[in-house]
Amino acid sequence: MKIGIVGGTGEIGQGLSHRLSHVHEVYLGSRDKDKACDISKCTIEELGKVSIKSLCCGATNQEAVDAGDIIVLSINYKHLESTLSTLTGFEDKIVITPINPIGRSDHFYHDPPPEGSAALAVKKLLPESARVVSAFNNIAANRWKEIDTELDYSVAVCSDDAEAKKIVMDLVNEVSKLKAFDAGPLAVSSIVESVTPLVLNIARYNKLKDVGIKFV
Amino acid sequence: MKIGIVGGTGEIGQGLSHRLSHVHEVYLGSRDKDKACDISKCTIEELGKVSIKSLCCGATNQEAVDAGDIIVLSINYKHLESTLSTLTGFEDKIVITPINPIGRSDHFYHDPPPEGSAALAVKKLLPESARVVSAFNNIAANRWKEIDTELDYSVAVCSDDAEAKKIVMDLVNEVSKLKAFDAGPLAVSSIVESVTPLVLNIARYNKLKDVGIKFV
Repeated sequence: MKIGIVGGTGEIGQGLSHRLSHVHEVYLGSRDKDKACDISKCTIEELGKVSIKSLCCGATNQEAVDAGDIIVLSINYKHLESTLSTLTGFEDKIVITPINPIGRSDHFYHDPPPEGSAALAVKKLLPESARVVSAFNNIAANRWKEIDTELDYSVAVCSDDAEAKKIVMDLVNEVSKLKAFDAGPLAVSSIVESVTPLVLNIARYNKLKDVGIKFV
Repeated sequence: MKIGIVGGTGEIGQGLSHRLSHVHEVYLGSRDKDKACDISKCTIEELGKVSIKSLCCGATNQEAVDAGDIIVLSINYKHLESTLSTLTGFEDKIVITPINPIGRSDHFYHDPPPEGSAALAVKKLLPESARVVSAFNNIAANRWKEIDTELDYSVAVCSDDAEAKKIVMDLVNEVSKLKAFDAGPLAVSSIVESVTPLVLNIARYNKLKDVGIKFV
């Protein structure tokens, strides 16, 4: 499969390319293609050290969208609208959003747009034929970066497109020890996104690092 | 400690009395005192079979409030306001709310009151000196009833009263294998309550039973 990562130089982009580019072609996209190529080169070198051939390459964000069968939006919520406004070609593609709109006062809280969640906002911003799926929301950014660390978490996956959801769940199950769970339609993404400020609060108030969740 | 359970004949009330009445005096409250006494008698008999003395007794809801140092509101959200309107004497007491306001369309969703959560609504309905703590929200009702089953879950605990929160976290840690986590102020209860419709969706869409969560 071909995976295009918009904002691929961030933690989740680097983490996914390390953990999937031995099997899938990963197009690490960025506004700064040179940076994307540098990070892609690092991934190839790191995996090369353990004799794994990485199918990772640097790209612009638009090239990542054009090349990917699956597009991952690895961007901060506040840059979502401005980033998507510069990109085209999402028609009929599977688009994964791991985006969580989070606010902070004395604690962390879910700060969703009027649509109800970042995923529902993504659906509204993209062409109608784009197959939006929310996944990978509740994994700490730090954990993505630690490429030698196993990711042993549950991943709630939401979509209104049953086939796209199934493809993404299979992809999730390929990443380290992640386990995908069908969380229902895209409307449920509101709760899934809100679990991220919850685990940030749990980490903060219990002096823990990088808390995740498991469904048991 | 003396624990008064309003709506104690429900699943959580029966579960808590089975799991705590060997150490704590549990006042199992109900609108129907006879029913409360019958269920209390069952608990005493069950624990007696394994040579454990149960300090459980049946009561009216008002007697449970009057007797308890800690009050557990084991009631459905839709009966919250009408039940609390019949009861007095919550001043200075620790009040635990495990209540989740849940709606259902094609999926389960969090359906909070204007205050933002059931816990924040409880705080508004009770006297100002009541020490409201949310806990035990995400444990399936069926699991409470299965008294021989270990409860091996994480429990997010929220309150604006640090001392009351600490007392409730200690109590949570006494129940089976539950592990309490400080989730911050009562405002965070909104997310914690919403995790219940999430696990209901996870159970439904993955054909699982009684799904809970662990923070890892």
